[in-house]
Amino acid sequence: MDTIKDAHTHHISQQFNEELEGVKKSMLEMGGLVEKQVRDAIRSLINADVQLAELVRERDDLVNNMEITIDKECTQILAKRQPAASDLRLVLAVSKCISDLERIGDEASKIARLAIELSGQGDSQQGFVEIRHIGDEVSSMIQQSLTAFARLDVDSALKVAHEDRTVDMEYRSTVRELITYMMEDPRSISRVLNIIWALRALERVGDHAMNIGEYVIYLAKGLDVRHMDVEQVEDRLESVEK
Amino acid sequence: MDTIKDAHTHHISQQFNEELEGVKKSMLEMGGLVEKQVRDAIRSLINADVQLAELVRERDDLVNNMEITIDKECTQILAKRQPAASDLRLVLAVSKCISDLERIGDEASKIARLAIELSGQGDSQQGFVEIRHIGDEVSSMIQQSLTAFARLDVDSALKVAHEDRTVDMEYRSTVRELITYMMEDPRSISRVLNIIWALRALERVGDHAMNIGEYVIYLAKGLDVRHMDVEQVEDRLESVEK
Repeated sequence: MDTIKDAHTHHISQQFNEELEGVKKSMLEMGGLVEKQVRDAIRSLINADVQLAELVRERDDLVNNMEITIDKECTQILAKRQPAASDLRLVLAVSKCISDLERIGDEASKIARLAIELSGQGDSQQGFVEIRHIGDEVSSMIQQSLTAFARLDVDSALKVAHEDRTVDMEYRSTVRELITYMMEDPRSISRVLNIIWALRALERVGDHAMNIGEYVIYLAKGLDVRHMDVEQVEDRLESVEK
Repeated sequence: MDTIKDAHTHHISQQFNEELEGVKKSMLEMGGLVEKQVRDAIRSLINADVQLAELVRERDDLVNNMEITIDKECTQILAKRQPAASDLRLVLAVSKCISDLERIGDEASKIARLAIELSGQGDSQQGFVEIRHIGDEVSSMIQQSLTAFARLDVDSALKVAHEDRTVDMEYRSTVRELITYMMEDPRSISRVLNIIWALRALERVGDHAMNIGEYVIYLAKGLDVRHMDVEQVEDRLESVEK
């Protein structure tokens, strides 16, 4: 009897592990898709590629569906498996993560909508260099935060938080410049505002990538570091290590 | 022995109920605070009341701490009580709700920051009527969605979704007007942009109130209606009722 029971326990536990790995893997896949969405949205804006922009907007449904599906899987694991400790943390972190990923998808879709508007507003490239630059930064922040999640890598998660601060500064200084430009050429206002909206969307993408980094710290260390400065987080982590 | 066991079970179950009621109550309290934050932020902007704006910004820490505390309580319930069915849905809905409430708090804090900037940018009241109007609408949407949550009232939750659509339309048409105004008076650009940011923050508040309405439907009907149009939601609910 014991052998059968062990085999059974083992089977359950292995299936449970597979379920946990499953939601984590799906979440990382969703992350890969939204990163692509952000990169494609930026490309569609810079190249005035309306077709690509429309593709990005269509694919947002896919992102939304992934959120619903993964969230359902998480709820089922909670109901059926009643996970504890680090397993519970993983399920909760995945559930929070997909919410940020979905919002990144929304921002990509917004940028694609702006790309379509901008394609009808003349050939000026004002602000494109900054969009490409900040866009590259936040896209790589998404990737880094997901890799950090996959590897439970706290240092990478902290790096994302530092990068988010750089992005915020660059965003603010670019907007200041664009406002000056609008004042000098009021006919450009509608167009430049669309550029500002796109930059703001990218800045928000950076915030969401940073949030994912925070869940990595929660997952690896059991510390909830939301709403802390990155220095405070580093202090807290140091005092935990001691 | 049975009596003791029953008493014990009853005790556990009553304590469990209290814990569930506890997180729900805390969430509603947090909701009351963020609604106040939004109303105060609008008031500080319209009256150029820098002191009130600073108070709103300080109180955002309180909102953030409530999110952390309630989320921790939710996690503890999941770990200790391993809730199922509607209890599990309640804990998960509370956990999602407080994340939207915290973001509403962020938007209020942003409006308060803009109020401080605007107080140094002259006496023009351009856009104030619209801020007050949309501000009143989204504040009452927060209240309605929370009352709907407390009462599991699906009809009220749907009403919030309808109102969000009105707010979105009003927001877009106001921004269009303000852009025209900026073009006519380029010296007003910095100031009017701050008004536009404040309106956008309010529009986001409306989105979050709508999200809370969606969790009410999840809680009451077990249906995940995120990313659906309000008409789709109504259709789904009708087919469930049948």
